[in-house]
Amino acid sequence: STAVQPTFGVHLFTSMAVFNRTSLEELLKKRFFYAPSFQAYGGVAGLYDLGPPGCALQSNIIELWRRHFVLEEEMLEMDGTIMTLGEVLKTSGHVDKFADWMVKDIETGDFFRADHLVEAVLESRLEGDKQARSEKVGTEGVNSAADKNRKKKKKGKVNAIELEEGTKAEYEEILAKIDNYTGAELGEIIRKHNIKNPETENDLSEPIEFNLMFESSIGPTGHTKGYLRPETAQGQFLNFKKFLEFNNDKMPFASASIGRSFRNEISPRSGLIRVREFTMAEIEHYVDPQNKDHLRFDEVKDVRLRLLSQNIQAEGKTEPIEISIAEAVEKKIVDNKTLGYFLARIYLFLVKLGIKTEKLRFRQHMPNEMAHYACDCWDAEIQSSYGWIECVGCADRSAYDLTVHSNRTKEKLVVRESLLEPLVYEKTILEINKKIFGPKLRQNAKTVEDYLLSLNEEQLEVLKKALEDGNGTTTVPGTDGNEYEVSRDFFTIRRQTITEHIREYVPNVIEPSFGIGRILYSLIEHVYWTREGDEQRGVLSFPPRVAPFKCLLVPLSNNPSFTDLVRNLSVKLRKLNVATKVDDSSNSIGRRYSRNDELGTPFAVTIDFQSVNDGTVTLRERDTTKQIREKVDTILHVLKELLEEETTWDKVIEIYPTFTQQELD
Amino acid sequence: STAVQPTFGVHLFTSMAVFNRTSLEELLKKRFFYAPSFQAYGGVAGLYDLGPPGCALQSNIIELWRRHFVLEEEMLEMDGTIMTLGEVLKTSGHVDKFADWMVKDIETGDFFRADHLVEAVLESRLEGDKQARSEKVGTEGVNSAADKNRKKKKKGKVNAIELEEGTKAEYEEILAKIDNYTGAELGEIIRKHNIKNPETENDLSEPIEFNLMFESSIGPTGHTKGYLRPETAQGQFLNFKKFLEFNNDKMPFASASIGRSFRNEISPRSGLIRVREFTMAEIEHYVDPQNKDHLRFDEVKDVRLRLLSQNIQAEGKTEPIEISIAEAVEKKIVDNKTLGYFLARIYLFLVKLGIKTEKLRFRQHMPNEMAHYACDCWDAEIQSSYGWIECVGCADRSAYDLTVHSNRTKEKLVVRESLLEPLVYEKTILEINKKIFGPKLRQNAKTVEDYLLSLNEEQLEVLKKALEDGNGTTTVPGTDGNEYEVSRDFFTIRRQTITEHIREYVPNVIEPSFGIGRILYSLIEHVYWTREGDEQRGVLSFPPRVAPFKCLLVPLSNNPSFTDLVRNLSVKLRKLNVATKVDDSSNSIGRRYSRNDELGTPFAVTIDFQSVNDGTVTLRERDTTKQIREKVDTILHVLKELLEEETTWDKVIEIYPTFTQQELD
Repeated sequence: STAVQPTFGVHLFTSMAVFNRTSLEELLKKRFFYAPSFQAYGGVAGLYDLGPPGCALQSNIIELWRRHFVLEEEMLEMDGTIMTLGEVLKTSGHVDKFADWMVKDIETGDFFRADHLVEAVLESRLEGDKQARSEKVGTEGVNSAADKNRKKKKKGKVNAIELEEGTKAEYEEILAKIDNYTGAELGEIIRKHNIKNPETENDLSEPIEFNLMFESSIGPTGHTKGYLRPETAQGQFLNFKKFLEFNNDKMPFASASIGRSFRNEISPRSGLIRVREFTMAEIEHYVDPQNKDHLRFDEVKDVRLRLLSQNIQAEGKTEPIEISIAEAVEKKIVDNKTLGYFLARIYLFLVKLGIKTEKLRFRQHMPNEMAHYACDCWDAEIQSSYGWIECVGCADRSAYDLTVHSNRTKEKLVVRESLLEPLVYEKTILEINKKIFGPKLRQNAKTVEDYLLSLNEEQLEVLKKALEDGNGTTTVPGTDGNEYEVSRDFFTIRRQTITEHIREYVPNVIEPSFGIGRILYSLIEHVYWTREGDEQRGVLSFPPRVAPFKCLLVPLSNNPSFTDLVRNLSVKLRKLNVATKVDDSSNSIGRRYSRNDELGTPFAVTIDFQSVNDGTVTLRERDTTKQIREKVDTILHVLKELLEEETTWDKVIEIYPTFTQQELD
Repeated sequence: STAVQPTFGVHLFTSMAVFNRTSLEELLKKRFFYAPSFQAYGGVAGLYDLGPPGCALQSNIIELWRRHFVLEEEMLEMDGTIMTLGEVLKTSGHVDKFADWMVKDIETGDFFRADHLVEAVLESRLEGDKQARSEKVGTEGVNSAADKNRKKKKKGKVNAIELEEGTKAEYEEILAKIDNYTGAELGEIIRKHNIKNPETENDLSEPIEFNLMFESSIGPTGHTKGYLRPETAQGQFLNFKKFLEFNNDKMPFASASIGRSFRNEISPRSGLIRVREFTMAEIEHYVDPQNKDHLRFDEVKDVRLRLLSQNIQAEGKTEPIEISIAEAVEKKIVDNKTLGYFLARIYLFLVKLGIKTEKLRFRQHMPNEMAHYACDCWDAEIQSSYGWIECVGCADRSAYDLTVHSNRTKEKLVVRESLLEPLVYEKTILEINKKIFGPKLRQNAKTVEDYLLSLNEEQLEVLKKALEDGNGTTTVPGTDGNEYEVSRDFFTIRRQTITEHIREYVPNVIEPSFGIGRILYSLIEHVYWTREGDEQRGVLSFPPRVAPFKCLLVPLSNNPSFTDLVRNLSVKLRKLNVATKVDDSSNSIGRRYSRNDELGTPFAVTIDFQSVNDGTVTLRERDTTKQIREKVDTILHVLKELLEEETTWDKVIEIYPTFTQQELD
């Protein structure tokens, strides 16, 4: 079947990027950063297990996230259920709108996401056109599509065939709008441009809508529908009242959640970038819609971001502007200070992890590109061999979610604020005269009352006029649609002075939402390099704070005189809470260092024969491969300072002499 | 419907325990430790959200677990998918055997777990009998059922009716065996003893089997069945080969995983104790079946545990023996040192969290009580108002899982060990003479060959004899069941000397499996108390390392002169990575302290007018409510030492004078 396909197998589509992904993937597989789940059973596309280094890396990213966001701003972190009552996701719009269009190879029955397939085929044809033209003029094809302002998709195999100018323009227009077509439109494009399954050249079915939520059933009755959550956000919104109370009714504030979410992708093929189950970290920051300033904005105002605004994209440009967040807010490129604050904080977080600034930009969604709940959205996009990939979304969901849940459940999800000055104003109101209204209208009283209570001030004035014109009687519709005669003694319509001491409002929500797996994978690409002159020796230069293991502990050989020293040092390192790996295998010291360069372990402590004699050990740094040699306690002290980023290796080797002559026996 | 029921609503069954659960539950609700998920939608039984303090408490428990187990022993932690390919759980036995029996109220359609319902009704009748008897003799009913060696279930409403001696004995026998009945037997018990739905007095259906896994479908085809994992273990077993390689092929070692698992319980009614979605932490420790010693056993040998062995239970006793783990292993109460090591480590972990030792015991499963995969099992049971509840299981799964997956997928899941001395022995073997065998047997060659290759040494000798007796010919069955004539030139049967340099074995698995939610809830009960003379003032005395928030920061009032001091202190506390809550609400200082006693915040730093003048602040300890007053830097230093458990409050107030006279304006 389509869904059960080996993910590390032969890919139909191949990447155009220069980056050598194959050798990195080999390293990640060999060192068990991750692997397809249930590999012995053939695997399932879009499901991966993180092995020990991947899992530790993920934990460290989450830990840093919690410290950078939750602890730093006293966010109210919660942990909600993944299994979600169907009704909740019906209300949020996910049951109706969280879907993709798919097409089916009419011979093999294989499914494809319709927009991705159209995109891949047309990009491949454009690429073929470029190749055909450059073959004619004898220049090398330039990868001009690489920096498009949408996600780069993998292309089909390329045939060097020149296109007519008109066709080429048409393809480019379709690609520019690819995120916005309906199913019917995609079907038309497929027919008109004779798009087939590039793998088999078979015809494709009409696009069919496919909801991306995994469905299940809760309890034994079979009547309670449940879905695996597609985001953690809904669980947070449903607890808004409890959060507000917990926060002593103070606004603004944020809730946060870290956990697994699910999207039943039609045909995922991009490694950790597009998966069916993923860890996300989401913040829901609740603000007064009339005041979206942020108390701590000044702390980040000078942070410079690379922004790709709607305007830039509308002009067909792909080069972001680099600008301070203060200026971006001032110039209304970024709507408000709270949104600006979070964009800057997201930037600081990603850079702290080790994401390269030149491969990081913030792209604003085009109006027609946004999710059904969003009213503005900026993505932090990180460049990798998969192109510019959305890794963090920062959406203004306005009051959408709180409003729909409140309407559905009748639970008020509002903030009440005492007004310093009471608000006094006049208002047209209607008062029903119950003694006459009920007895006269009898069984119809309810439907008429419901209609009357739904009228706004203007409508009430119209009704009042109608009564006056009709000499004290007129007809009104009931909520049942029938007309009923009413007279002026049924109710009173009059002006009244209203004095309000409390302001009541539905907060708006600014939502920074992090795809942890995408960040993790992009980070790995950014820190990957190979030793000069030896492309077999890969290195992952994780910053110490996110590195899966902090310290490698290696005895020079398995000579028994090292045993006690290794054990004692292990105990000391654990006491310091340093994640240590002991490698006392019989491999050469060089091979053991190389292995840990591939794991990204920043430091290694080596015990040799001199250690047994004088109590000194060496400390090796991963990137420079330089070593120092000092007494154990000094080394532990230096190591702890390095890991807590209180010092740097450059400073360390200024203070301590580097050591070069390890005796190997 | 049955599944959608308010969980904090009116319960049919009420607890018999003395502990006042209601007031604790009120506190937990008020302070948003947890709440039913989707409460505004009516909630769903068995699904809960952890609010900010519950979520922080859970994170801290997990953090401590990771440090105590994973870091301490260099376990290979992984993070696998929740969505599991159906085939995997078919092989593991869960599709066929992971089920409970349920009965249905034939009028209302409500479902109940059959064994729980029988248990509840019979216990209620026995309780009624006891009441009737004690009314006769005028003594108070004693809760003798409280310490049974099985989990305490909630009882139906009790009617004081005396039972005949024979009936009583029969009920007690059924209760003793309640975990072991088949569906048909439960049906018979229900009919024979006239058991009804105690809520409605309606008849019940025959027991129906209900699989406890949530089912879904992966991908768009609808043909790939998936289940939400019922345990993290299977994901670990499937990666065994990769783990072993990652561990440089060294044995023994452990993998570990922390994550969400799911059980679609029929009718969960016990708060956080029995839920449909839960966080678990599991260790799979792989050992040589011929050597289950543990290298670090000596480090724990003197740890004394309260053990309730099979023998004690078989004698009908419920009082555990207290014994050192070394003695328990020596006396074969606990089977081996690895199992013993983990029981002791589990004990040390739980005590470090704050679990009370007198409410902690280890109970061995009776032979007929174990899961389908287990060959021995000890539960760490923690006593709470729900009775003695299994919170950690420690099972010896033998080679069960690795064997069944290996058989199904043909992937060898074994350890290969170089033998110091090669193993040399004689063996009867069969060699097929292909030149004759194939041509003679033609299309039947395969079925006969398969049969011959399945024969063991003894069977080969019998065949050899038969050929001799039959003058060089005989008949053998094919694997198709038909008989075929074979002659001695088809194959050779002879003795051969075998020399083995490698030993190959399937490791056994010792599995400590932690229910984080159950531990979390039990811990809350253990640390809950109320101030003497004021039962309204609840306190949760979490040890600092697991407390949700470590420090409360309170300005005496919202006087603007405090603002800068609060901000500076906040920054300093964050730098020290101390989870701090600022409470600058207008509540009295006493109310703010009380609120944080309920949150279990161990320390409070208070800023008052004296602080503005002389730079001193007070530090208050939650349990004693005592305070000291020192300069800010001293207080921060003391606080950090307290949180890292390098000192205790008792020592602190020996060194620093206690402070009593806070000026309140």
